[in-house]
Amino acid sequence: MHDGASTQAFAPPLLGEPYLLTPGPLTTSAEVKQAMLRDWGSWDADFRAMTVELRRGLLALTGDRRGDYDCVPMQGSGSFCVEAMLGSFVPKDGKVLVLANGAYGLRAAETMRYIGRPYTLIDKGDYLPPRGEEVAAALDADPGITHVLAIHCETSSGILNPVAEIAAVVESKGRKLLIDSMSAFGAIRLDVNEIAFEAMVSSANKCIEGVPGFGFVIARKDALKAAEGNSHSLSLDVHAQWATMEKTGQWRYTPPTHVVAAFLQALRMHTAEGGVAGRGARYIRNRDVMVAGMRELGFETLLSDTWLSPIIVTFFCPADPNFVFSRFYEQMKQKGFIIYPGKLTVVESFRVGCIGRMDEHVMRKVVEAARQSLAEMKVASAAPPADAIAERAKLAA
Amino acid sequence: MHDGASTQAFAPPLLGEPYLLTPGPLTTSAEVKQAMLRDWGSWDADFRAMTVELRRGLLALTGDRRGDYDCVPMQGSGSFCVEAMLGSFVPKDGKVLVLANGAYGLRAAETMRYIGRPYTLIDKGDYLPPRGEEVAAALDADPGITHVLAIHCETSSGILNPVAEIAAVVESKGRKLLIDSMSAFGAIRLDVNEIAFEAMVSSANKCIEGVPGFGFVIARKDALKAAEGNSHSLSLDVHAQWATMEKTGQWRYTPPTHVVAAFLQALRMHTAEGGVAGRGARYIRNRDVMVAGMRELGFETLLSDTWLSPIIVTFFCPADPNFVFSRFYEQMKQKGFIIYPGKLTVVESFRVGCIGRMDEHVMRKVVEAARQSLAEMKVASAAPPADAIAERAKLAA
Ligand SMILES: Cc1ncc(COP(=O)(O)O)c(C=O)c1O
Ligand SMILES: Cc1ncc(COP(=O)(O)O)c(C=O)c1O
Repeated sequence: MHDGASTQAFAPPLLGEPYLLTPGPLTTSAEVKQAMLRDWGSWDADFRAMTVELRRGLLALTGDRRGDYDCVPMQGSGSFCVEAMLGSFVPKDGKVLVLANGAYGLRAAETMRYIGRPYTLIDKGDYLPPRGEEVAAALDADPGITHVLAIHCETSSGILNPVAEIAAVVESKGRKLLIDSMSAFGAIRLDVNEIAFEAMVSSANKCIEGVPGFGFVIARKDALKAAEGNSHSLSLDVHAQWATMEKTGQWRYTPPTHVVAAFLQALRMHTAEGGVAGRGARYIRNRDVMVAGMRELGFETLLSDTWLSPIIVTFFCPADPNFVFSRFYEQMKQKGFIIYPGKLTVVESFRVGCIGRMDEHVMRKVVEAARQSLAEMKVASAAPPADAIAERAKLAA
Repeated sequence: MHDGASTQAFAPPLLGEPYLLTPGPLTTSAEVKQAMLRDWGSWDADFRAMTVELRRGLLALTGDRRGDYDCVPMQGSGSFCVEAMLGSFVPKDGKVLVLANGAYGLRAAETMRYIGRPYTLIDKGDYLPPRGEEVAAALDADPGITHVLAIHCETSSGILNPVAEIAAVVESKGRKLLIDSMSAFGAIRLDVNEIAFEAMVSSANKCIEGVPGFGFVIARKDALKAAEGNSHSLSLDVHAQWATMEKTGQWRYTPPTHVVAAFLQALRMHTAEGGVAGRGARYIRNRDVMVAGMRELGFETLLSDTWLSPIIVTFFCPADPNFVFSRFYEQMKQKGFIIYPGKLTVVESFRVGCIGRMDEHVMRKVVEAARQSLAEMKVASAAPPADAIAERAKLAA
């Protein structure tokens, strides 16, 4: 277990409120929530200035120095943004190669099915990463593919997909890259000078540490212009939202004003922490401390260290018959920590998030709570069942 | 001007924050905003219980005693809900008669165009009400029409449309009624025993006085069941949202947890005020006091009293060349009141909202601020130009 001194010391949540070790909604700072204690008129200049600050602040995280990109916030949850991106940037005669290795990749494919536009799916199952080579082969095999959709961190397993490798292939084959960076953006570098994406999406309640209520698209301006007339949905039309914002400074429809105010405070604290690098460093430390501690208790991670993201980590449920996830969940909750169920189809698992307003001190307490919970459940060993290990062996193969 | 004593005495907004005399976002109570000062895990039982309370609380406002209806909240702004309702309840071979007399009716028609399903439009222009007779004629003329969409309060003029009259015709002709009750629900009676609607929508930041971030659909359960497979959009699929909530108690995608918490507090305060009747009575008094005062200053309303809603009122801009709306707006803002620009296409106008956490005392101050602002702008008379009066004469015809 890691012993270094922490540089962070955050105030704990109030009133015995539990920490959310979940990939959004997550634990936010008191300052972020306090920013919601007033009302704004969405038409008023004060709020329009807030929208400008929000768009600029997000764009600044992408390294776009040439002014090629723009940021378009969109009401709704992250999935609404993924759908808005697919419906707006993929023309009716376009075709998408969806790279899936978990629930969010599959949801993108389902979105394409709803929209009724052509797509092909590379489905790698629960967590195996889509690699550059297979993407290249798929693109060579089907010249009709215009866009590739990649998931940055596939939150359902916690794997950090090789987007740089994928981006290089997509660019070399002259196709366009769309990225779902929902759970990664703001903590994991996604620089337009390194990864030439057409558009990406993320949302307020992930690594920027805001509260949920909107997402945002960051896209090439030429793509935003060309998106006119593509969308299958009025509400989710990124071009129309962008055009209105450019012209009037307003969101097309009523914005979640309080959530936006909270987000601006979150953005300021993100800057104060050192931006993407600083935020990412804290999350990496959270992960390292937490994973080391859980491994000491006998838990095993689904992924090898190469693929572990600093966002969320999947652990196998122990084979011990005394281990029941719902009880473990309740016991962790009583100790002040809300963990997350797993999303694997083959083996039993659970997840622990590393993002949100918490530091390694908190992570040590998480490990201690897990130790106590195991003891209370009389789980002698946290070792996973043999089939879990066999499953994991696929990753090395 | 009305002289009766008020039964309400609300705390004013903090920190010199202006009152929002706008139709949402609006001025909310301190208690509503304070309910956002903690974080919830969206998967956790605590939050699932909040979702149950929200759905039950909204259903209770509809008078549904037989359990025929259900309530489905949906992330996004109100327009997202209108689109979700149209895309989910109108089957691909359905056809909608859209009754428009302002911006929101026209937006519903535009939504149909995006979705690519057939519709006919009765467009009454800026504010003339669609009447039962013409709806009957349109339904007789086109047996292919399966659904009628009506706007309850058309917020762009403030007119309260005759939905009961329309509902009776729609029912007698065997068609289904969809209602956009965005700005009316919670303050104006919409009882399923009196108005047999198939589905209706509203949003968090209107007459329930929550903060913006989600809307909700209230629909017949048989319609919810039959909606499977209709939606053009994954995110906006009301059936899927409903089915997931019924099965798991969770929203399909990340809910705006803080906005939901604020809304529950708002619902409790709505109940404490006497529900729809109590809330409506306060808004009526707000309107009466404000309209009487503005008329004393020489302002004239677009609508005659028969059609004035207690939600928002449109006034003609004075003919006096010294009156400039942007200056009037700024002067009202300096005095603590944010008003709203007009949305009429033919004559210049502005709007003053009657909804939100404020009472007749505040409305008297609004009138006083208008009086001072006119004086500061050296506007001698608030009387409207002749073409405004001519325009209004249409309503009587
Ligand atoms: C990678 C990824 N994509 C999409 C989503 C969907 O976001 P939401 O739940 O806000 O709709 C998530 C949510 O965690 C995610 O992690
Ligand atoms: C009648 C009506 N319909 C639809 C809307 C759209 O709602 P939103 O701005 O939340 O998208 C409004 C907003 O005021 C409205 O008043």
